[in-house]
Amino acid sequence: MPNFLKNNEVGVFALGGLGEVGKNMYVVEYQDEIIVIDSGILFPDDHLLGIDYVIPDYTYLFENQDKIKALIITHGHMDHIGGIEYLLRRVKIPVIYANGLAIGLIKSKLENHRGYRVDLKEYQEYEKLVLGKLKVSFFRTNHSIPDSFGIVVHSPEGRIIHTGDFKFDFTPTGPDADYQRIAELGKKGVLLLLSDSTNAELNEFTKSETLVSESIKDIFTQIEGRAIVATFASNVHRVQQMVEASIATGRKIVVYGRSMVNTVEVGKEMGYIKAPKTTFIDRNQVRKYPASKVTILCTGSQGEPFAALSRIAAGTHRQISIQHGDTVIFSSSAIPGNQESISHTINQLFKRGADVITNSPLSDTHTSGHAGREELKLMLKLTKPKYFMPIHGEYRMLKIHAQTAVKTGVKKGNEFVLDNGDMLAVTKNSARVAGKVQAGDVYVDGKGIGDIGNVVLRDRKYLSEDGLLSAIITINTKTNKLVTDPNIISRGFIYMKERSELTSEISDLVKEKVSEKLENIQSLDTSRLKRYITNLLRNYINQKTERNPMILPVIMTVN
Amino acid sequence: MPNFLKNNEVGVFALGGLGEVGKNMYVVEYQDEIIVIDSGILFPDDHLLGIDYVIPDYTYLFENQDKIKALIITHGHMDHIGGIEYLLRRVKIPVIYANGLAIGLIKSKLENHRGYRVDLKEYQEYEKLVLGKLKVSFFRTNHSIPDSFGIVVHSPEGRIIHTGDFKFDFTPTGPDADYQRIAELGKKGVLLLLSDSTNAELNEFTKSETLVSESIKDIFTQIEGRAIVATFASNVHRVQQMVEASIATGRKIVVYGRSMVNTVEVGKEMGYIKAPKTTFIDRNQVRKYPASKVTILCTGSQGEPFAALSRIAAGTHRQISIQHGDTVIFSSSAIPGNQESISHTINQLFKRGADVITNSPLSDTHTSGHAGREELKLMLKLTKPKYFMPIHGEYRMLKIHAQTAVKTGVKKGNEFVLDNGDMLAVTKNSARVAGKVQAGDVYVDGKGIGDIGNVVLRDRKYLSEDGLLSAIITINTKTNKLVTDPNIISRGFIYMKERSELTSEISDLVKEKVSEKLENIQSLDTSRLKRYITNLLRNYINQKTERNPMILPVIMTVN
Repeated sequence: MPNFLKNNEVGVFALGGLGEVGKNMYVVEYQDEIIVIDSGILFPDDHLLGIDYVIPDYTYLFENQDKIKALIITHGHMDHIGGIEYLLRRVKIPVIYANGLAIGLIKSKLENHRGYRVDLKEYQEYEKLVLGKLKVSFFRTNHSIPDSFGIVVHSPEGRIIHTGDFKFDFTPTGPDADYQRIAELGKKGVLLLLSDSTNAELNEFTKSETLVSESIKDIFTQIEGRAIVATFASNVHRVQQMVEASIATGRKIVVYGRSMVNTVEVGKEMGYIKAPKTTFIDRNQVRKYPASKVTILCTGSQGEPFAALSRIAAGTHRQISIQHGDTVIFSSSAIPGNQESISHTINQLFKRGADVITNSPLSDTHTSGHAGREELKLMLKLTKPKYFMPIHGEYRMLKIHAQTAVKTGVKKGNEFVLDNGDMLAVTKNSARVAGKVQAGDVYVDGKGIGDIGNVVLRDRKYLSEDGLLSAIITINTKTNKLVTDPNIISRGFIYMKERSELTSEISDLVKEKVSEKLENIQSLDTSRLKRYITNLLRNYINQKTERNPMILPVIMTVN
Repeated sequence: MPNFLKNNEVGVFALGGLGEVGKNMYVVEYQDEIIVIDSGILFPDDHLLGIDYVIPDYTYLFENQDKIKALIITHGHMDHIGGIEYLLRRVKIPVIYANGLAIGLIKSKLENHRGYRVDLKEYQEYEKLVLGKLKVSFFRTNHSIPDSFGIVVHSPEGRIIHTGDFKFDFTPTGPDADYQRIAELGKKGVLLLLSDSTNAELNEFTKSETLVSESIKDIFTQIEGRAIVATFASNVHRVQQMVEASIATGRKIVVYGRSMVNTVEVGKEMGYIKAPKTTFIDRNQVRKYPASKVTILCTGSQGEPFAALSRIAAGTHRQISIQHGDTVIFSSSAIPGNQESISHTINQLFKRGADVITNSPLSDTHTSGHAGREELKLMLKLTKPKYFMPIHGEYRMLKIHAQTAVKTGVKKGNEFVLDNGDMLAVTKNSARVAGKVQAGDVYVDGKGIGDIGNVVLRDRKYLSEDGLLSAIITINTKTNKLVTDPNIISRGFIYMKERSELTSEISDLVKEKVSEKLENIQSLDTSRLKRYITNLLRNYINQKTERNPMILPVIMTVN
């Protein structure tokens, strides 16, 4: 326990998820016990060149690993479970609790890492886990993946609710959210609410999956050719809607894209996807059916270069090519950063003669999995928390969510907009930001975890803009003279073959200036000479080309 | 004249602007005469690493430069005038016609290039230019920059209208669009309409600037502290709205950001910006006024890293720091690709304690400069063209615009969705795609025009993802032996200091394998040896790290 936490205080903090959408990881700490909620990754934006994922800094958990009672998972999205494999490499976790689909997804993630000893258990909806002084129970929510739950941590000071990712869908595709249990918690008393802020900026009630379902059925009825549908593979409920719309309009379904094939398999196995045996057909059977009786269900709703739909759009898919009458439906929204790729895919599809339908006020092909501001108010009204901490969102979302909480009844001053690592210390009667634990970003690139820092990223950025130019010189340390002409190499700078003049100018310049230098020095200081060459070439090249390639001087010595 | 164009046909084609929003350049060709409309640049998306601008391939104009009668400019946005400086380096243009603000902007662009001989003339709204067999007249439109015009090319076969960028604003900030002249053209007969497709996907009538003006006045009244407003500097009308809202609420205005300062100066000079002398104040006077009486007008609405607002948000602006009560208004929309930077700026502003207002259904702080689908229909109804060619848009926008044209009365088959270079050949009674002229993208990077090709871009992309690793070996060609240990250098690959073990492993590997090779060969084939080293290291590094840095083997020889 950090020394800034008093013995009767419950510490609540995030190691990921505040000021960002991703790498969710929340911690409840009381005396000698720690409960961790979720362990996600963040998909990096374009500025993190070449980075695969970002994970939280696990140092605090590593240093306090003997206190950890369990990791509890709210649901199976990657920003909530994707970090488990990295966490387990560093921190001893006695048991992971998850439910339903999340169990299956975690298992398939960990299969590749058999080295870990981990106890993965399924929690039951109405179960109460006793993990020491802290107890944990659950309530079902609606979200864009089945089996999503809110978590209640019962502490000696009071109930702490973590909503997980949620929305309230009054006509969901799967089971209802458990309004009664949530309201009952509010009646009994909630000390602290941590609630999903993703859509706090949207002044609305997120539309129901049923509206999407009906809209898709409508669209399926109207289109004459094949229906080609791309959606998020993790949204099993949405896939079931496509299945139902296909059945209703007499269409057979063929599935493309690895993760979509996987979703359909798992979904059927676990009972989320229900269809007569003859609904799904093999790829080689497609030709037996007229276009108007075919649905192609595929990945690629974000314009990912190697996904099925992107290859169909580019004309490089081995089995599917766009034919007259095809309609492509994007049952998805654009994740920030993907707009350009999606737009490119849509243009290609139009060009190949397909019609394309995206989510719009005229055709509801998608709805969010997160609560709009009106649902956030409902959660606040149902739980009536004494203290409030918005989670799962960029700073402006958290801020607006906190303002919303105050407007809905949380006492001004009882709302806490925090950063990752900030520890909120609560008791029955008090709440304060007690201090800060170590938190931050760790980059995963290939097999390397945390070996990429800002220097490497800055170099990648630099290289991406004007490439590099290397000048290699060999010096005879006996004579203090150049052994050969400088060797000038560039990549990503300019098409050097076309500019051989520039290359020889640079080589001559280096030869002349370095030879001069060498004549006037007694002993060779290579670092100093490298700096000299770097400055020399940076100025010369910038003046000649207005570009700034990375300059990489290399000095070889022979004697 | 290309041999595929018949003597009585008028050729109409784009060298830029079809399948893209940017580098607009349209050509009308009749017998031995060519008229060019606009000469723009395209701002590259993230895939074109380090590229400053994209311009059209001017080859066709270069080869036919003796036929060029004039370049006519519709308005002063960069995607319509930004290419002029590059065009003039390659192609002889006898005269450029432009109007009002565009004249000033072109002049300031060309000032840096005094070498060109160019005749820049101002056309008058009601003038008819006789340029040979082709004549040109104009009609005023509404757009997000003052002095925007549509162009009418009067050919012996009929009238060809190019709308320029336009919308219909019934309550504009500047003068009305010239409905009467447009309708009169429709009455007299329009052979071919080329019309702006930017917002063809939006099933609406673009809201009026007056609505924005009123909304901004409302916001200014409600905010208690300073109003910090960011907008596009080229939108002089919008800047005038900020001035009026400031005057109405008793605020003094201080201006930050080079292009905004420039807009205010030019705008005042040309009469677009009207304010009492005391409205604009110097930066050192700001402290004399209470926060509620201050408007800060600045650049940075797109989250550009060095713009005034971005520096204010980052806390690095020398004069302005966010104080309690500040409200930042984004009077702008996000240009695709900029969402992440804007979002980052907004988060920072919230974090520093500012309130932030962006364009939304609740606060109309911005409206587009382009016609929504309803206005496109109005243009079609007013002009009643026989043939139709949608321009200025990505493929899906052109396609939807063409469908809209057919729905509004253009005969099915008379609409032409084309690519850059496709030549539409029209006569009184016919229209056909006659052939294709050379068209494409030319990249501008610093001083280099067209010297960056796909090889260089691919290298930049490659370098941006995993950096590079260079192995430098020096071989004595007499003994066929390595002179020193291989020198291993990397940038952007991995933080080598932390992984010195890997470096020495790689060095040892190269030493061992290359020495082996050298023993078994008679004469040194350096290309072959380089390929060998590249493959060796690529496999070794990928297996060790799962990364793929660019491998750059360098072989120095001494004897």
